[in-house]
Amino acid sequence: MIEAYRAAWTDLEAHFAGATAAAGLAFLPFGALEQHGPHLPLGTDTATASAVARRLAERLDGVLLPPVHYGDTWNNAGYPGTVGLSPATVTAIAVDLGRALVGSGARGLVIVNGDWGNRLPLASAVRILNDEGVLPAIALDYPGMAEAIELVRESVPAAPGLNHAEEVETSIMLALEPELVRRERFVAEYPEFPSDFGVRPMQLHGFSASGVFGDPATASAEKGQAILGATVEGSLAVLADFIRGL
Amino acid sequence: MIEAYRAAWTDLEAHFAGATAAAGLAFLPFGALEQHGPHLPLGTDTATASAVARRLAERLDGVLLPPVHYGDTWNNAGYPGTVGLSPATVTAIAVDLGRALVGSGARGLVIVNGDWGNRLPLASAVRILNDEGVLPAIALDYPGMAEAIELVRESVPAAPGLNHAEEVETSIMLALEPELVRRERFVAEYPEFPSDFGVRPMQLHGFSASGVFGDPATASAEKGQAILGATVEGSLAVLADFIRGL
Amino acid sequence: MIEAYRAAWTDLEAHFAGATAAAGLAFLPFGALEQHGPHLPLGTDTATASAVARRLAERLDGVLLPPVHYGDTWNNAGYPGTVGLSPATVTAIAVDLGRALVGSGARGLVIVNGDWGNRLPLASAVRILNDEGVLPAIALDYPGMAEAIELVRESVPAAPGLNHAEEVETSIMLALEPELVRRERFVAEYPEFPSDFGVRPMQLHGFSASGVFGDPATASAEKGQAILGATVEGSLAVLADFIRGL
Amino acid sequence: MIEAYRAAWTDLEAHFAGATAAAGLAFLPFGALEQHGPHLPLGTDTATASAVARRLAERLDGVLLPPVHYGDTWNNAGYPGTVGLSPATVTAIAVDLGRALVGSGARGLVIVNGDWGNRLPLASAVRILNDEGVLPAIALDYPGMAEAIELVRESVPAAPGLNHAEEVETSIMLALEPELVRRERFVAEYPEFPSDFGVRPMQLHGFSASGVFGDPATASAEKGQAILGATVEGSLAVLADFIRGL
Amino acid sequence: MIEAYRAAWTDLEAHFAGATAAAGLAFLPFGALEQHGPHLPLGTDTATASAVARRLAERLDGVLLPPVHYGDTWNNAGYPGTVGLSPATVTAIAVDLGRALVGSGARGLVIVNGDWGNRLPLASAVRILNDEGVLPAIALDYPGMAEAIELVRESVPAAPGLNHAEEVETSIMLALEPELVRRERFVAEYPEFPSDFGVRPMQLHGFSASGVFGDPATASAEKGQAILGATVEGSLAVLADFIRGL
Amino acid sequence: MIEAYRAAWTDLEAHFAGATAAAGLAFLPFGALEQHGPHLPLGTDTATASAVARRLAERLDGVLLPPVHYGDTWNNAGYPGTVGLSPATVTAIAVDLGRALVGSGARGLVIVNGDWGNRLPLASAVRILNDEGVLPAIALDYPGMAEAIELVRESVPAAPGLNHAEEVETSIMLALEPELVRRERFVAEYPEFPSDFGVRPMQLHGFSASGVFGDPATASAEKGQAILGATVEGSLAVLADFIRGL
Repeated sequence: MIEAYRAAWTDLEAHFAGATAAAGLAFLPFGALEQHGPHLPLGTDTATASAVARRLAERLDGVLLPPVHYGDTWNNAGYPGTVGLSPATVTAIAVDLGRALVGSGARGLVIVNGDWGNRLPLASAVRILNDEGVLPAIALDYPGMAEAIELVRESVPAAPGLNHAEEVETSIMLALEPELVRRERFVAEYPEFPSDFGVRPMQLHGFSASGVFGDPATASAEKGQAILGATVEGSLAVLADFIRGL
Repeated sequence: MIEAYRAAWTDLEAHFAGATAAAGLAFLPFGALEQHGPHLPLGTDTATASAVARRLAERLDGVLLPPVHYGDTWNNAGYPGTVGLSPATVTAIAVDLGRALVGSGARGLVIVNGDWGNRLPLASAVRILNDEGVLPAIALDYPGMAEAIELVRESVPAAPGLNHAEEVETSIMLALEPELVRRERFVAEYPEFPSDFGVRPMQLHGFSASGVFGDPATASAEKGQAILGATVEGSLAVLADFIRGL
Repeated sequence: MIEAYRAAWTDLEAHFAGATAAAGLAFLPFGALEQHGPHLPLGTDTATASAVARRLAERLDGVLLPPVHYGDTWNNAGYPGTVGLSPATVTAIAVDLGRALVGSGARGLVIVNGDWGNRLPLASAVRILNDEGVLPAIALDYPGMAEAIELVRESVPAAPGLNHAEEVETSIMLALEPELVRRERFVAEYPEFPSDFGVRPMQLHGFSASGVFGDPATASAEKGQAILGATVEGSLAVLADFIRGL
Repeated sequence: MIEAYRAAWTDLEAHFAGATAAAGLAFLPFGALEQHGPHLPLGTDTATASAVARRLAERLDGVLLPPVHYGDTWNNAGYPGTVGLSPATVTAIAVDLGRALVGSGARGLVIVNGDWGNRLPLASAVRILNDEGVLPAIALDYPGMAEAIELVRESVPAAPGLNHAEEVETSIMLALEPELVRRERFVAEYPEFPSDFGVRPMQLHGFSASGVFGDPATASAEKGQAILGATVEGSLAVLADFIRGL
Repeated sequence: MIEAYRAAWTDLEAHFAGATAAAGLAFLPFGALEQHGPHLPLGTDTATASAVARRLAERLDGVLLPPVHYGDTWNNAGYPGTVGLSPATVTAIAVDLGRALVGSGARGLVIVNGDWGNRLPLASAVRILNDEGVLPAIALDYPGMAEAIELVRESVPAAPGLNHAEEVETSIMLALEPELVRRERFVAEYPEFPSDFGVRPMQLHGFSASGVFGDPATASAEKGQAILGATVEGSLAVLADFIRGL
Repeated sequence: MIEAYRAAWTDLEAHFAGATAAAGLAFLPFGALEQHGPHLPLGTDTATASAVARRLAERLDGVLLPPVHYGDTWNNAGYPGTVGLSPATVTAIAVDLGRALVGSGARGLVIVNGDWGNRLPLASAVRILNDEGVLPAIALDYPGMAEAIELVRESVPAAPGLNHAEEVETSIMLALEPELVRRERFVAEYPEFPSDFGVRPMQLHGFSASGVFGDPATASAEKGQAILGATVEGSLAVLADFIRGL
């Protein structure tokens, strides 16, 4: 595994020159600077995506790119400290990086997305990269994570599929950066959502004063590690045929 | 000083709520993943901009944003490992972040630019932010650094104002991240440049096989600290009236 | 219910002038001209979306707009006869129509989407319309349909959530336009999909020679009516709070 | 003639595979949802363009595409019920469909334009399609119609070349969809126009309270058929060398 | 009349400060660098538009802006020496200048267009300027010229409404810049045009080897003066209500 | 030297057909309509760029294009009479003209820029033209002028590198168009600038009531000629290898 931020250009050149398909992959963590309640850091999504991307790069001996620290966080923009990009900019970043990687000899781009709001703009980017023949590319939205959550979660989710600053995300951060988790600030919130929640785009600050959606009380580093491990395995499973086709 | 990546949204809200003009500033390091010869890491520009931004945020008790790790590195794109953005995307990132900071209560945005290629697109962004009344913004291209270099440099520059992977940048990285500097790979290169160099946009890989422009042999951490220190002071001098006018 | 295509402008003006929130809604069927196997017409998605939109307009006494006959059908573009729009154009159409409806006195826009590929670009459009305060807008991707399918389907789906030119869509067209369904051309296809299917954007013509994904043999008009009825009810349920908030 | 909405993709594929140049043409009616006085439906332009396109497709054994129901109707936007697109979107639709038709095997695209406001944006689209070598394309603005009008019109036009919801358009709708013509709502209006009318872009609602420009009283289905027939012949005459050159 | 190129900013400020509606108009000649046969200069369209604009500015005591020397000359791009702009750029120039004039105190913008290809993009620009309330604006395509031509022309036109490097344009240049007209190079050409000429966008170099469309032999300065004079009067007639409405 | 405005297309064709690399260059003066104090005309930048471009075209026997009379003059937009373009439009003009020149047989494009605000957008344009392989292009920002100014200037500059409507520009206009210089309006202004002047984009009207920055009193035609002459020589020196590489 090569960490691009710390390597010299000649290291990258040498790595890609003799690389297998898997080792020719570049892994890009795409995060966000987004509110995660009073007890988790604004960098939670970036930390999570970076950790998953690092483990994938290690497992496949690929190249780990430095993370994109900002994402499309419109639905959390009502909480100060959330500092995001427009969806068009998220798309542009991923497309530009895909184009640039071609010149470095990369065989493919794997985006590890850590932010819900990045899903649409990254899907657009990946389609452009594949459709225009720039570079084989894929964006992973944590495959395998949902199933792993089911196995470990003790608390009730605030809404189906909604894990924001509650047991799940707090567990992940306890596993990754426990010193950034302020246990003394734990609060639980269970908002009431309208009938068009999840269908119509909505900003979240009207629903939760704290920015927590659910309850972090039962979080643990062990659960976090289990969720992260399953996400890495789920990602590797999805990538199997992607790599085969390179 | 608050480091946004590690803080919770409530910390940011509290900080901005009672902030003086200076403390209300957000500092954004804008770097690049760009070749810096065989002996310096691809993250050199990001590391340098992050260090300057951190010191400015400390001195003014402002908010340090996480860095943008990618920039407009077209002129180094011929060296594998350089992975850059188009100028339009660089502009878009800075404009988007400026818009987003308004909602967080920031009083102004100070971009600390670490990459030569970002100068034009960031100048465009800053003009938009100021002209459209989004947020007072300024992009600093290391004011004070050129004068400090004159005081400490022992080697001859490859061209006037060109400091790339030679004594200056190597000194800075020896001061910041010495473990990432590979002394055993030091080489010197002094290309011949055509009459329109510096006027007409040119890619650099035709001029230097190593990516070094000049000679890193005389680099030292002390020189690096002197240059960084002067750059911080030069930046503070430029910012004086900017802050007064907020 | 008013059908805009057939009404005069003075009819629309009168309708909107005295309308309740529900009656002030305009319903836009967003379809596609897309391959649906050898036995279903290219207009299948438009026919389905138009039927659902008509029933919703009837139930709420709203305004039925003429359908958009073209959508983002990139994943079926390898089948001749599929004639589609870029995602940016799909977004632009919906945003433009939203802006234009304001001047007519509409209270809100309900897009009834009939094409999988339109989901992302319509989500973008709806966010713009709501976020910029143009007009309250929502895009419905057949809420309630998946549950109804589970109740009536006898065949095995080709992949989870994939209903294309098989029992489900054929049943719907048997319910809506039976004369356009060619039973004599029924074929079944069950492709093998790679591990990144559903994650990475893919065009479908490599997987099915006929364009059928599954088996239409057990289709019936009754099943189609059941699915359509449940979709209308599911849509009304989602719309309840949307209307309340107008 | 093949009607794409009702045909399967295999029908289109077979048709284009063995087609002559003329039969290889796709005919796209480009309409509008636009006010046409209190007595004509909002869909008047779409109905007219669809009828002309259908007759052309029949005469040349080509492919009839489903209509675009929305156009650039800025000059009638002051009348509620007019729901239009921006000119850029009109252009984008036509360019996208042109690009998409190439993959289906079409030999050329004939746009039958039914809305005055679409003229400029469709001219832009057709130039792009031809200039970039996408597909031979042409936009017809009812060639032959002006001459035919001269032969049958009994009323005085409100301005030279202006036929809006008066004798001409009412005759056409009496020929095509008589049940949508409300005779009891007939009114005549003859506005005074300023010296820069027809030169400077103007919205029309300040000139006519009813949206009628002229007098529909002498309209008849016979006149409508004569006008439509002459438009079809005029269109065929223009298309002669276009087809020869394919 | 004030010629902006030669005046100081304080002259413009003083002029607009006390100006009547007519005197508050800025006149922009929009030309082209386009082939006009072997005997007329590439600047023919700019020269003509500048002359008409100057006379209008004199008659109304307005402000004459310097000309735009480049236009959308796609249909003559096959002749070397034709150097043109894309239609989007033509539109952008006119919109930008309209926006900028507001700050100078202008009451309106009158574009005097000298190039056929500029018609569509300038129509787009003028609609934007008026529709968005930037500044009252109008683009004049030589009103009154066609009628004047009928009165003086002795030669047969190559096609209805087509005056390119023949009797008409040569007469105008004989009136304006006789030293730039090379009589010894006069040639006549009467191409055969296909049935879709004038409907489908076409480049002209396939039709005329010389770039002349018609016959310049009967050109005279007197005819040119008559045509220019009538164009000025026709323009003033169109402008009457435009000025009244300012 | 050929002046494109006055030449016929056949002259251009003949010139480029047999041209050396130097003679195959097209010279484009890019000016501005911008305030230059009460004593200099708004066309000062265009006049200067046109003069330099003409002398270069003469020296190299190239083609002189007509000037672009408008530029990005945002920083002087607060003075009435300044009428400018957005930076995007400046870029678009230069890119379009570069593309168009290819078809005429030009070997390269030399933009002679006369306006400070055009620097960034023209740098963007030139990079596009070179990077996309359209045409070798270069933008000259008066190389050699700064050194020549040092030799002749008697007055103190208002800020380093700032020559606006003072001794330098007044001298140039006395050399080029003395009848447009109003000596009786001479004023001197020496504003105080804030610490971020020259770093942060600023509009200038808050600093100088007259629009003069410095003192024109010591201007002379001789100084102007010296500055222009040195600028032409400086430009030729920069162009030497550009021409060699064509």
